[in-house]
Order: sequence, then C-alpha cells, then structure tokens
Amino acid sequence: MKATILIRPKSGILDPQGLAVETGLGHLGFNVQNAHVGRLVELDVSANDEADARAQIERMCEQLLANPLIESYEIVVEAAA
Amino acid sequence: MKATILIRPKSGILDPQGLAVETGLGHLGFNVQNAHVGRLVELDVSANDEADARAQIERMCEQLLANPLIESYEIVVEAAA
Repeated sequence: MKATILIRPKSGILDPQGLAVETGLGHLGFNVQNAHVGRLVELDVSANDEADARAQIERMCEQLLANPLIESYEIVVEAAA
Repeated sequence: MKATILIRPKSGILDPQGLAVETGLGHLGFNVQNAHVGRLVELDVSANDEADARAQIERMCEQLLANPLIESYEIVVEAAA
C-alpha cells in the first residue's frame, strides 16, 4: 500500500531552513512569506487495509521518521493499484 | 496565495536518505519497500492568480528550491482563504 508522509516543523518551533528559503527567495526578487521546509517520505507498506497501514505508519513516525517533539506529521494512504 | 511544493529525488538517482529509512524501518520490524525521502516546502506567494503563482514557483524551483538535475518537483497552489 502506497503512502505519503508529510513532516513539518511544528508552528512556533524555529525553522532555519524555512527562514533561509524565505530570505533567499527575497534576494532573488520573489515576494514570499511564511516559508517552511519539511520532509516528504513516500513508501510502500505491507498492510491488510488502510487502517492497518495508517497505524503502522504512525508507529514509524513516532519511532524513526519524525521527531514528535518538534515536528508534526500528516499521513496520506493511497489504495493499492 | 498558499502553495505547497513537493520535491522528490528523480527515479534512478541514488537516494541515500530513502535507503536509510528503508533499512532503519526494516530493523524496527516494519515491512516497507521503495522508500524515498524528499522535501516539502510551504509558502505564501503574492500573485494575481493561480497561473501567476504557479509560474513564479516554477522559477523559484529552478533557481533555488530544487536541483533540476536530480530532483523533480510538484506544485500545489491553494486558493487564498
């Protein structure tokens, strides 16, 4: 089952990559605000159904993929082709 | 105008972060394949309409956000609230 995990810095947490992107784009002449940089993880997981896949991925996020202290995550599970 | 940019390693390009995630999750007992790690950029851009926003963000990707040699990007523009 194909899944996409979007990992974002929690609001209020310092996001130096986001600041660098915002500053860099400003120097290039673009007018942008509120830039934030996170991570995108895509993977295929063996699961019985969508609920199982989602539960497994939540455990993956807590154990390895994200730092729950400073990052939030959003899980999108796509039905198997 | 709020926009999300998904930046992924192109297929066929070595993705060491993806391999590390796949190996790490395997060691934790998860059964996953085809793990890939990319970047997620979210920002607000000043634009007249969606087409303008998309054109600006394509230029941002080419100039700063992505490395077009090894990364592909997907732009999602949300209508302003």
